[in-house]
Amino acid sequence: MNLQTLVNKIQPLDKAAMQKARLRQDMLTKPQGSLGRLEELSIQLAGITGKPIPEIRDKVIITMAGDHGVVAEGVSAYPQEVTPQMVLNFLSGGAAINVLARYIQARVVIVDMGVASDIPAGEKLIVKKVAHGTANITRGPAMSREQAEASVMSGVEIVEAEVSRGLDIAGTGDMGIGNTTPSAAIACALMGQSPKDIAGRGTGVDDEGLRRKIEAIERALKANQPNPKDGLDVLAKVGGFEIGGLAGVMIGAAANRKPVMVDGFISTAAAMIAVSIAPQCRDYLIAAHRSKEHGHGLMLDWLGLKPLFDLDLRLGEGTGAALGISMAEAACKVLAEMATFGEAGVSEKQQP
Amino acid sequence: MNLQTLVNKIQPLDKAAMQKARLRQDMLTKPQGSLGRLEELSIQLAGITGKPIPEIRDKVIITMAGDHGVVAEGVSAYPQEVTPQMVLNFLSGGAAINVLARYIQARVVIVDMGVASDIPAGEKLIVKKVAHGTANITRGPAMSREQAEASVMSGVEIVEAEVSRGLDIAGTGDMGIGNTTPSAAIACALMGQSPKDIAGRGTGVDDEGLRRKIEAIERALKANQPNPKDGLDVLAKVGGFEIGGLAGVMIGAAANRKPVMVDGFISTAAAMIAVSIAPQCRDYLIAAHRSKEHGHGLMLDWLGLKPLFDLDLRLGEGTGAALGISMAEAACKVLAEMATFGEAGVSEKQQP
Repeated sequence: MNLQTLVNKIQPLDKAAMQKARLRQDMLTKPQGSLGRLEELSIQLAGITGKPIPEIRDKVIITMAGDHGVVAEGVSAYPQEVTPQMVLNFLSGGAAINVLARYIQARVVIVDMGVASDIPAGEKLIVKKVAHGTANITRGPAMSREQAEASVMSGVEIVEAEVSRGLDIAGTGDMGIGNTTPSAAIACALMGQSPKDIAGRGTGVDDEGLRRKIEAIERALKANQPNPKDGLDVLAKVGGFEIGGLAGVMIGAAANRKPVMVDGFISTAAAMIAVSIAPQCRDYLIAAHRSKEHGHGLMLDWLGLKPLFDLDLRLGEGTGAALGISMAEAACKVLAEMATFGEAGVSEKQQP
Repeated sequence: MNLQTLVNKIQPLDKAAMQKARLRQDMLTKPQGSLGRLEELSIQLAGITGKPIPEIRDKVIITMAGDHGVVAEGVSAYPQEVTPQMVLNFLSGGAAINVLARYIQARVVIVDMGVASDIPAGEKLIVKKVAHGTANITRGPAMSREQAEASVMSGVEIVEAEVSRGLDIAGTGDMGIGNTTPSAAIACALMGQSPKDIAGRGTGVDDEGLRRKIEAIERALKANQPNPKDGLDVLAKVGGFEIGGLAGVMIGAAANRKPVMVDGFISTAAAMIAVSIAPQCRDYLIAAHRSKEHGHGLMLDWLGLKPLFDLDLRLGEGTGAALGISMAEAACKVLAEMATFGEAGVSEKQQP
C-alpha cells in the first residue's frame, strides 16, 4: 500500500458511537459533565474506535530513535553517542519510559529509524534504519524525499504490526540527540514562526547553546526553503527519521481507527507532519501534555489539540504519553463501569 | 490524644531524605530536572515519609459524607436525599470514585460523618455521625465548637486506623448535597474574599441558584462572624461534618508522616481548616487538580499548593485524588526503578 492510499483510508470519527457515549455519560451517577475532560476523552475514543463503550486493554508505547547531522553545530548538551546508549538502556529496561510503561502495563516497542551507529539487532529492537543519521540541515536537506516517505511508511508498518497484535492505543516516543532542533525547524516551517519563538533548551543547553540552536534553525530554513503546503517536503528538508516514523505511526493508527497519545515536543512536530500529509488523522490524536520546551504550546494550538496536563516534562521517550494513556484508560473505565441513576436508585437533578 | 497534642506531633519534612532523593534523581539516565513535577513530587514524598526512596503500595481513598442545613436556601441542583443514595452507591461500587479507585488499586473507606438520614451501618460503612446534618448557616452556626472538634478527631481516628493497616498515601473525598456552599463560606472567612469571587455552580445550579448561593454565603458570614485566626471557629460557624472529618484526616496523616492527596473544592476547604489549625501539615498535602469550581484556584494559591493537573473536574468523591495518587505512584517508581548513568553506561552532559 502506498502512502496516499493509506491517507485516503482515514475515516471521520463515528458520530453515532459518540452520540451513544454522550448519552450514557449523562445517565451515569454524577452531575452531567462533572468529569470534564475525562468525559470528552471517552467520547472521542468512542468516535475513534466506533465503539459506544470503548475499551483500552492493549497499550503500546512506540519509541523511535534517530540521529541528526545538525549536532555538528553544537545544538545539544549531550554527545551523539548517547542516542545508541539510551537505546540499549531502553532494551534493558532502565529508562524512564520503561518504568512508566511497566506502571501502566504497556508494551514498549523500540525502533532504530536512523541511529548514526549500528546497534546490534536483538529480539527487542526493531531495525528500520533509513540511513545512519540525517545530513546537517544547515547545509542542505536532512534526507531525500524518498527517504522521508520511507520513514513514514516504516512507521505505518510498525503500528500496523502492533494493530495485528491487538493494540488498543499507541503512545509515541522519541530518542535522538539533537532532535529538538529539527522539530523546532518543522514547526517554524509549517507555522511561519520565528525560530526564537519556538526553539527551547532541549536537554539543557546554556544561553550560548540556545543562540547556536536558533541560528542553526534560521540557516536550515534559509538553505532548504521547505514548502509549508507539503508535509513530506518539510520532513525531507528539515526533519528526522524518527520524526517521520512517528508521523507514520499516527497516520497508520488513524487509518486503522486506533487512538494515538502524542508525547511532547518531538512527537508534536511529528503530529504536525502527519496532519500536513493527512489532515483527517488529527481527530485520532490526543495530546498528553504541554512540555516545558519553549514553543510547544504554540505547536499544540496550531494542531488544535488541548493537552491533558502540564507537569513541566521535557524528557520525551514517550514518558508523557504513558501518563496520558493512563488517563485515557481511566476515562474509558468510568464510561464502562459506573452505575446509571436508574441502576443505583439515585434521584436526578431537580428542574428549576 | 487531644487535638493540640496531635498538632504538636507534626514534624517538618525530612531534609536529609529529600537531599538523598534529589541526588539520586540527578544520577538517573535523563537530563537533570527533565521529569519536572514528577521529580519534585518524589522529593516531597521522600521528605514526608523520611525515606530517600519512598514507596506507595497501600493506597486509600477516604470519602466522607455529610448533610447541610443550608440546602433549605435552595443552593443545590439536587435534593438532599441524594447524599444517602450516593453513599449506598459507593458501598455497592457503582460510583465514579469506585471505578477510579479500582483502576489505581486503592481501597475506598466510606464514612458517614453527619448524613441527615440514618444509613444502615454495614461492614463497609463507617459511622462517625456527629449529628443528623448541620444547622442552616444563614441563621446561626453550623455546629457547636465541640462538634467541630469531634468531627476533626473522628477524621484523625479514621486515618490512624488506616495507617495501622499499612496506608502509604491517603486521598480525600467528599459527598454532601449543598457542600460547595459551606466550603465557599470557609474560603471567604479565611481569605477575606467576597462570596461572588469564590462560589461556583457546584453540581450545576443555574444563574438564579448561583445568586441564591452567593446571598446565602453573605448572610452566613454576617450572621456568624467566623474568626479567621481560629480554624475550629470557622469550621463550627460555617463548615460541615465531612469537611471537619477531612481536615482531621489531613492532620492525622501529617502527624504520622503520611502524604495526603487533596481532591477538589470541598477537600481544599478542608485543607484550609487543617492548615489553620496545624500550619505544619501543609507540607504533607499534595493538590491533585484545579477543579472547574469558580474560586478553587484562589484557594489553592492561599494554601501555596500547585495542582498537578486541570481536567475541568467538579465531581468530588475523591475522583481527582485517585488520578493524582496514580501520578504520585508513578513519580516514586521513576525514582526507585530507573537506571543511573553509571549502571546503564550512558554518557553524561558535556561541560560547556
